[in-house]
Amino acid sequence: MEFSEQFKPYIERVRQDLLNSVAPSLPSSLSEPIHYFLQMPGKKIRPLLTLFSCQAVGGRWETALPAAIAVELFHDFTLIHDDIMDQDDLRRGFQTLHVKYGESTAILVGDALIGLAYQELIKSPPDSRDAIVKIFTEALVKVCEGQALDKEFESREQVSVDEYLDMIGKKTAWLLKVACALGAICGGGNQRQVELLTCFGDLLGLGFQIQDDLLDFIADESKLGKKVGSDYKMHKKTYVNLKYRELLQHQPELQRRYSLNLAEYPAFSDFQNALYATGVVEEVKREAERYTREALNALEQVIPLNEDNPLYIITQFLQNRQY
Amino acid sequence: MEFSEQFKPYIERVRQDLLNSVAPSLPSSLSEPIHYFLQMPGKKIRPLLTLFSCQAVGGRWETALPAAIAVELFHDFTLIHDDIMDQDDLRRGFQTLHVKYGESTAILVGDALIGLAYQELIKSPPDSRDAIVKIFTEALVKVCEGQALDKEFESREQVSVDEYLDMIGKKTAWLLKVACALGAICGGGNQRQVELLTCFGDLLGLGFQIQDDLLDFIADESKLGKKVGSDYKMHKKTYVNLKYRELLQHQPELQRRYSLNLAEYPAFSDFQNALYATGVVEEVKREAERYTREALNALEQVIPLNEDNPLYIITQFLQNRQY
Repeated sequence: MEFSEQFKPYIERVRQDLLNSVAPSLPSSLSEPIHYFLQMPGKKIRPLLTLFSCQAVGGRWETALPAAIAVELFHDFTLIHDDIMDQDDLRRGFQTLHVKYGESTAILVGDALIGLAYQELIKSPPDSRDAIVKIFTEALVKVCEGQALDKEFESREQVSVDEYLDMIGKKTAWLLKVACALGAICGGGNQRQVELLTCFGDLLGLGFQIQDDLLDFIADESKLGKKVGSDYKMHKKTYVNLKYRELLQHQPELQRRYSLNLAEYPAFSDFQNALYATGVVEEVKREAERYTREALNALEQVIPLNEDNPLYIITQFLQNRQY
Repeated sequence: MEFSEQFKPYIERVRQDLLNSVAPSLPSSLSEPIHYFLQMPGKKIRPLLTLFSCQAVGGRWETALPAAIAVELFHDFTLIHDDIMDQDDLRRGFQTLHVKYGESTAILVGDALIGLAYQELIKSPPDSRDAIVKIFTEALVKVCEGQALDKEFESREQVSVDEYLDMIGKKTAWLLKVACALGAICGGGNQRQVELLTCFGDLLGLGFQIQDDLLDFIADESKLGKKVGSDYKMHKKTYVNLKYRELLQHQPELQRRYSLNLAEYPAFSDFQNALYATGVVEEVKREAERYTREALNALEQVIPLNEDNPLYIITQFLQNRQY
């Protein structure tokens, strides 16, 4: 079954609550672009992680709805501000907010979404509210750190694979981790369960980003929905080209056949071929699978893994997606 | 005595705690611009309001330090993002953040400051934390609403004085109001005290903004530290020109001598003369004084007013400032 079909009732409820989170007092210059953004298609992975992490520790998923909505609003804020910084024109096939409504509005919409996110968040159960606000706030700082590092890397000559992992750990994985942690806390999970689900979300997030980086090099364009090689053409440092660089640096004999300087490749397809030939594609695939496997190891200590388990289904989906 | 001299120990402590709020984990591309901004001169009115509101209800001012720091970080976030939106190059005589470090960094710094603000805020006393986070979050949404309205007004033909008051109530007064409310709550004030100090902060904020608008038209440039008439030249709708418009609309005979269309004035000084001649300057001064007087009426119900009362001193200072 299609992923979105499978979780339809949950996704529908998340969509509805997201729309309801838009305070009616907002002036139209804010509410209109917010609605535009909220109505874009999207799989709602993060809020689903929150809801199902709540269930995994024996809670009712509805208890985690405010936290789930807060997580998605937070995610939307980062997308909107990142799109300005990266000067991206399209998001999920739609005009980005700053292209459609101007940069000032996009900045302000992002800011307002942080406010709306906290407004939802504090509707969480009172006995866990303190912990929830603390974790959410830490995520806000960490995700900004991650984005700052990502921007720093653009102008740096050399970035190590470890530095890259630290960056995506903050920029991408932190929110998936927090999505799971908040769900587990809302569901009344004990400390061990919360830790394991936090760990699950973190590893899932790292595997997700590495897979994402790989897809930009090897995906089928018709499935990816955008051109492959866009990171490459933007000279973005991603897991794939950093791994390639690392491999060549450790195996000088390879440097006789392959260039460390990517600009020396006549075409993107030549670099693609080099990635396959040097075994980088295989290696990166293995790494992504390793993170996913470790994520499932953590999850398994909370709840038995089977084909009906929604967190297991999401993990498999992220692992196997071609887009 | 100079205002900043008078409260030196408090201001020094606020400055120190602001610097300490910058998480050591932040990458230099964030921490460097944050330090640049935090080290600009400034009177720290908002955190002082928080500390002295705490004292006014019998609390130790130190109890309110986390909330005071959160309020100032919040204020800094709004200044940084507003400067991008308004394309302002200078702030307190220094290059604005987006001019010095680029727009992407300025957006991200603003975002990170919201995170740091909440990180301070949640260090507030546990028994009042829930209320504090709620009030602070509402302020985040309201201030965004205020900024959105301000931007909307730029492209609107007509704005009424009431609409303008609603806008500055959100954009400017809300944070002063919340600064006082948070202090009163941290200090263990009862509901009535919190309400009165909230009211004090709101009225103080409205008087402050109206005074600010007036100064742009009539200040002594050498004291203001910038050119007078900048709002006028930017065609900004402020309390002064909206009052002027309202006056002429209600007194058609005035329209024979004074133009409703400000563009018809040959020079800024001609419009200045009209503001004096029509009595608008006097009227606006009276309004600002009225808000200040009402603010003090509210304050007086919490604490006896005398020359040594720091909230009284701040109120007088804001009322009398020429810059």
